[in-house]
Amino acid sequence: MFHTPDPVRAIALGARVSVSNKLISDMYSELKEDEAIELVKRLYKMGHHTPFEHVSFTFGIENISRSCSHQLVRHRIASFTQKSQRYTRFGTRSLGSSSDKRIEIEDLYVFPPSFQKHPSILTKYRDYLELGRRLYEDLLSKGIPAEDARYILPNSAHTSLVMTMNFRELMHASSLRLCQRAQWEIRSVFEEIKKRVFEVSPFLSEFLCPKCEITGYCNEEKSCGRKPKKES
Amino acid sequence: MFHTPDPVRAIALGARVSVSNKLISDMYSELKEDEAIELVKRLYKMGHHTPFEHVSFTFGIENISRSCSHQLVRHRIASFTQKSQRYTRFGTRSLGSSSDKRIEIEDLYVFPPSFQKHPSILTKYRDYLELGRRLYEDLLSKGIPAEDARYILPNSAHTSLVMTMNFRELMHASSLRLCQRAQWEIRSVFEEIKKRVFEVSPFLSEFLCPKCEITGYCNEEKSCGRKPKKES
Amino acid sequence: MFHTPDPVRAIALGARVSVSNKLISDMYSELKEDEAIELVKRLYKMGHHTPFEHVSFTFGIENISRSCSHQLVRHRIASFTQKSQRYTRFGTRSLGSSSDKRIEIEDLYVFPPSFQKHPSILTKYRDYLELGRRLYEDLLSKGIPAEDARYILPNSAHTSLVMTMNFRELMHASSLRLCQRAQWEIRSVFEEIKKRVFEVSPFLSEFLCPKCEITGYCNEEKSCGRKPKKES
Amino acid sequence: MFHTPDPVRAIALGARVSVSNKLISDMYSELKEDEAIELVKRLYKMGHHTPFEHVSFTFGIENISRSCSHQLVRHRIASFTQKSQRYTRFGTRSLGSSSDKRIEIEDLYVFPPSFQKHPSILTKYRDYLELGRRLYEDLLSKGIPAEDARYILPNSAHTSLVMTMNFRELMHASSLRLCQRAQWEIRSVFEEIKKRVFEVSPFLSEFLCPKCEITGYCNEEKSCGRKPKKES
Repeated sequence: MFHTPDPVRAIALGARVSVSNKLISDMYSELKEDEAIELVKRLYKMGHHTPFEHVSFTFGIENISRSCSHQLVRHRIASFTQKSQRYTRFGTRSLGSSSDKRIEIEDLYVFPPSFQKHPSILTKYRDYLELGRRLYEDLLSKGIPAEDARYILPNSAHTSLVMTMNFRELMHASSLRLCQRAQWEIRSVFEEIKKRVFEVSPFLSEFLCPKCEITGYCNEEKSCGRKPKKES
Repeated sequence: MFHTPDPVRAIALGARVSVSNKLISDMYSELKEDEAIELVKRLYKMGHHTPFEHVSFTFGIENISRSCSHQLVRHRIASFTQKSQRYTRFGTRSLGSSSDKRIEIEDLYVFPPSFQKHPSILTKYRDYLELGRRLYEDLLSKGIPAEDARYILPNSAHTSLVMTMNFRELMHASSLRLCQRAQWEIRSVFEEIKKRVFEVSPFLSEFLCPKCEITGYCNEEKSCGRKPKKES
Repeated sequence: MFHTPDPVRAIALGARVSVSNKLISDMYSELKEDEAIELVKRLYKMGHHTPFEHVSFTFGIENISRSCSHQLVRHRIASFTQKSQRYTRFGTRSLGSSSDKRIEIEDLYVFPPSFQKHPSILTKYRDYLELGRRLYEDLLSKGIPAEDARYILPNSAHTSLVMTMNFRELMHASSLRLCQRAQWEIRSVFEEIKKRVFEVSPFLSEFLCPKCEITGYCNEEKSCGRKPKKES
Repeated sequence: MFHTPDPVRAIALGARVSVSNKLISDMYSELKEDEAIELVKRLYKMGHHTPFEHVSFTFGIENISRSCSHQLVRHRIASFTQKSQRYTRFGTRSLGSSSDKRIEIEDLYVFPPSFQKHPSILTKYRDYLELGRRLYEDLLSKGIPAEDARYILPNSAHTSLVMTMNFRELMHASSLRLCQRAQWEIRSVFEEIKKRVFEVSPFLSEFLCPKCEITGYCNEEKSCGRKPKKES
């Protein structure tokens, strides 16, 4: 949604300050985009990742499952503000909205791709969700507070959040979450993040890649085969 | 479960090093428990909280809901390792256990106290959980991986985790989570934490208290009335 | 030097996502500056400080002492890249610069105000700095590496750094460093930071204030008298 | 000085909780040391480093230079309390001590090994330090506060600190600071840290090694030759 302006030059400035005696403001104004790109490449190669922290990106992430958000918030070097199941009523697109368009089950829950192949499972899943949705409304109508009624909501219930991460942590998180062994939903979140970074800077987006691209080998127990396993 | 040995003296040592020219090892061996207590009291009063970070506590937290664990892991200055819904099969106390004792619904899910007053709700809640439990087994038997089958598990499904927090962060987290306005389940986790700290050090456990005890006023929109609201 | 664009609305968006069912992109486009200001005021009053983390500021901080930088980098929730005394040669404004203007002692070291009142001290301080400067050059000419020659540089030797801090941490650091009891040099750094934030948003700059303005009392051992001491 | 008790089993427990359905207390009591060792080895190999955070070590680090401490405190995932140059008077081993043994220059400052080879440099260095020491006393006697008098202290002036780091961060910091290209003083601090960890657990101490031992290649611009450079 928004990000540090002029991110490549911001990272390069952070690097240059350590090795130059010039005034910071002069360094910044003199720094050209192509020099900045070369400097950032060298930094990365040498493993000097601190300057990448001077740049942050903020994303609005919508309609992911609570399973996915639970994994996402485990990245501790990041800032999250998430839709509350205590303070919002689940199942209404917009509280107090005048719209009376019915909200479909598909608008409220994630449907894992692996369910799609089994029509009987899809039917049972829908029935289960409908039962839960009615029970949730029933609880609220009996005076149960939303913070307790949410105990029945499944992991697949949609949530939304705003996430701010600096670019160093984005590289780290992507190295884990873009791995073929990562869970499909969080991998798709990071694929989307990579696309958004590409729109800002194709150059920077290339730093968002699975860990095997960085180390040259795979350390997963079950490898996807993209890179060889490390001999111990 | 475990904690930094001799925690009061460890905090006091951390404080004393800043203002003394003695050797650290001498300081530590000379430091008496009652002096340490006085020093820690003064530190706290002056807002010097860094020395409290030299002490960590590790807790095993079992059979809380995923709602509760989602809140808990939002404390970023802490270390968590949590039971995975990707790598464990839900609903079995112990994989490969020889025990054939049936596992009851109550062993697997949290029952919010507000549900208890409504027998009709309890019945519907149980039916819903039983349906979900059968659907989960059904999914697994159709070859759906556990990482997708878990999408149907409700927030109330039990989880367990090991949490390590330094004492400064324990004070901070407790100031929020022991507030009467905190959600009941996470408040009960912190009440239990306070009891465990009391077993180690009654003195230290007193630093675990709601924020209004520290500031002298309440900043919640809906106050429990324990302390006056702050005039702006 | 640079900061998250449109910072007040960015914080307000982070807050609104927790309590609204609207799409994040719609929330953001609909959010008006004056609403955002009201929302941010309420957040702050209620102690919900996480949304303030969605906004970061980056500052170029020049010609401060190493004493000051040592205190500054103790703020751990921040990113610093600092002029290295290993990789730069001290005492040259700009390596390889064509300028042959002599660099004065005043261009290289901080002169504490308390020294200014004593002409005899100023003379001795200058003599000491000149001796050190010659010794430093001497060491380098004997082949001592810069990383060892720097051991003789005094705390007052100038350094520069680029610092990125999110706004929540800026509020916290300012609460400590704008206190009258804070050391004069770091206090002046934060006074300058507050001015720069004022240029971006006069509204946000008001959140940067000494801790006593927030709590209403003083917890320092020696109070400046601005606010009463807290009765224990 | 102190550390989490029984550290190998503590790490292994943190790992086991994610993949087992047993009670945490049962897991812990059943976990044997040799199983724990095997589990920790596998964790490390797979890059699952979070469980290593459940274990912390606290070290008293004495008589290092301020250059070294400035580098040390840049590790942000750690807790430091350091001797203050504001609140202690430099050059007195122990304030108010009855001892009248003269404190030698060698007791107060670091002497870099590279100085030792040049007797003329050693003489000049000593003269410079003596001059600074007299000036420091002079400043205090004129009523200059210690927080300003310290501006003349050189980087080589001794400082002490208490540092607490979790084991994951200890592994990370060691990977950088045990590199042959790291600055000699901080490398010697980490060599000493490794020895102290060895006294607690020879097994764990092996995880403290330079980064090239982990990745198999060197990414420094000037390599020591221990491992080949990475082909890009």
